[in-house]
Amino acid sequence: MVRKSINPFQVMEILARARELEAAGRSIIHMEIGEPDFPTPAPVVEAATRAVAAGHVPYAQAAGIPQLREAIADYYAERYRVDVSPRRVIVTPGASGALTVVIAALVTSGDEVLVTDPGYPCYRHIVELMGGNAVAIALDAKARYAVSADMLRQRWNQKTRALIIASPSNPTGAITDTVAFDSIARFVHSRGGVVIADEIYHGLTYRGDVQTALGDGVVVINSFSKYFGMTGWRLGWLVVPEQYAQPLESLMQNLFLASSTVAQRAALAAFLPETRAILEERRAEFRRRRDMIVPALREIGFDIPHEPDGAFYVYAESSQFARDSASFCKELLERAGVAITPGGDFGRHKAREHVRFAYTASLDKLTEGMERLQRFVATRR
Amino acid sequence: MVRKSINPFQVMEILARARELEAAGRSIIHMEIGEPDFPTPAPVVEAATRAVAAGHVPYAQAAGIPQLREAIADYYAERYRVDVSPRRVIVTPGASGALTVVIAALVTSGDEVLVTDPGYPCYRHIVELMGGNAVAIALDAKARYAVSADMLRQRWNQKTRALIIASPSNPTGAITDTVAFDSIARFVHSRGGVVIADEIYHGLTYRGDVQTALGDGVVVINSFSKYFGMTGWRLGWLVVPEQYAQPLESLMQNLFLASSTVAQRAALAAFLPETRAILEERRAEFRRRRDMIVPALREIGFDIPHEPDGAFYVYAESSQFARDSASFCKELLERAGVAITPGGDFGRHKAREHVRFAYTASLDKLTEGMERLQRFVATRR
Repeated sequence: MVRKSINPFQVMEILARARELEAAGRSIIHMEIGEPDFPTPAPVVEAATRAVAAGHVPYAQAAGIPQLREAIADYYAERYRVDVSPRRVIVTPGASGALTVVIAALVTSGDEVLVTDPGYPCYRHIVELMGGNAVAIALDAKARYAVSADMLRQRWNQKTRALIIASPSNPTGAITDTVAFDSIARFVHSRGGVVIADEIYHGLTYRGDVQTALGDGVVVINSFSKYFGMTGWRLGWLVVPEQYAQPLESLMQNLFLASSTVAQRAALAAFLPETRAILEERRAEFRRRRDMIVPALREIGFDIPHEPDGAFYVYAESSQFARDSASFCKELLERAGVAITPGGDFGRHKAREHVRFAYTASLDKLTEGMERLQRFVATRR
Repeated sequence: MVRKSINPFQVMEILARARELEAAGRSIIHMEIGEPDFPTPAPVVEAATRAVAAGHVPYAQAAGIPQLREAIADYYAERYRVDVSPRRVIVTPGASGALTVVIAALVTSGDEVLVTDPGYPCYRHIVELMGGNAVAIALDAKARYAVSADMLRQRWNQKTRALIIASPSNPTGAITDTVAFDSIARFVHSRGGVVIADEIYHGLTYRGDVQTALGDGVVVINSFSKYFGMTGWRLGWLVVPEQYAQPLESLMQNLFLASSTVAQRAALAAFLPETRAILEERRAEFRRRRDMIVPALREIGFDIPHEPDGAFYVYAESSQFARDSASFCKELLERAGVAITPGGDFGRHKAREHVRFAYTASLDKLTEGMERLQRFVATRR
């Protein structure tokens, strides 16, 4: 009866097996999940608790409560020096909800959307659920995982509606710099298309801040999950061109009714100076982890031609150790108790030759993970 | 650029204007919104506060946290005497999210889905967003707004995939009894289709409890919003046939990642005896309101051939007072300060001849609303 199905992510199988092993008493180092290991910042929790105390938790407006749309607009002024009207901000149930609603708006049957390979797999899945076709652009570490206007020109046709591009990227951690992005955006705009810029890992960058991709014909996706430490609250946002705001609000109403009022009231505290201070400490900690793990992986023998500058991932070539990264990940978990994600979750291009490490565990645990990894690969040479 | 758009609900315009008038000092009686006027029950708020206190709010599993799936399964055993495996329960971001994910799974381009007219408008909109066509079944008050197997037989064809039916219904409050439902379900099952039974207003019924529609080839949608008083938390659920569980879990992962962890931890307290006692008091209060408002509306001159037995709506014929219910609602708001919803939000069939009253205000306010309405229509005879 179910007409459309999507293969579950391999990481879910890894995670389930890791939990099984833990339940049986094994020690597991978790480097598989894209979820920060820090709690929600205390000021955010306190704001939520205050907001719900009296039980008054009505439906929010479909596009978000006005105070939060304003706070997000203010954040663009403060962090990026970009002027955004609160009318252009649509609050969504996570970045997933943002993707779903924007792809629902833009894609009809037979439309094409360009996505990167490797890239976040849900882009492709949601495009296909809406009747569109996702067309992959293969990216390579040697070229810093960069998308160029030339790559777009080769694939753009009458049916192409949009490009989805993430910076920093999952799984590579690569950042698209402003000059490169401008040439991409100009090309897409010249063809009447839309750039969907996924900035969910903004804030988690380790060579200073990164500028938002906001500009003509650009839709920006962001989230309170990663930098702001609010994964389980399910809250994200879109910044859209003015003329999209009303249609997207109406789609929000139909698909979701509204985003969580509780999460929105909580998120108002995400922009407070005391919260930001906590978040910036965490950013520094992620950087320390990256600075430990990247050299350690190279030392062990993983090929990482392009050092990741953002997010909390390292995408490493594993073909030195195994022909198929999926079986490599399974064995690594079973034999060494280290959980990581095979490249197959992020596309097809050289997927069997790559694995993703998430540095969402403490330095101590990561160090232990590197030691286990070293011993494991030593047995395979 | 936006390829698909949906007209906003007329009720949103009514609501916005009502708030404008209130801001200008006018007193408004709100009978337009489908949201209970009661706060979230205290045990639910307390459960949420305890759950988030330490800031540990990770992503939930895509299909919901195991404890909540079990609690929902237990609720079916206790309330309906129906045996449901927790594996068949999928926790969703509201009933809206439930609808979105189940329609995404069932409908591909060109598929047809039967919906009732009048009915909840998002059914049609989500079907169309997924590339399907919604085919309306016109229902009449004189026939108690009942759907029959004969009606289905006339409209069912090779492309028909499903019937969406709500009981109690929005906007009519009508209940489909078990005998009628069985004949509907048997017909749909015999054609290899699926019944999507929207039970979001279960618990809000005024002639005793109503049995769930769960059975072969039936997908049930429910929510913590209405009976459980948790609108702004955005949490609902699906009960699906066993073989749907894995594909729907995977779709959940892609479209939403997961439902709110905060809301799920809160909802665990929704089934506690102390919460249920609060909810049953509220049900009695809704019943008192219905027992006041239905005779009052009839007295004023509205035609209500079929007394609503559930939800918190009265769908009344307004053609005695106006040729077009949309302009009737606008004038009623401007002149008398009473906000209600025109029939056009629920379909096309006799939509201009009907309006919906929501009794989601206190008895005092509803009484005042009835007095204003009486004075208003007196000027129009």
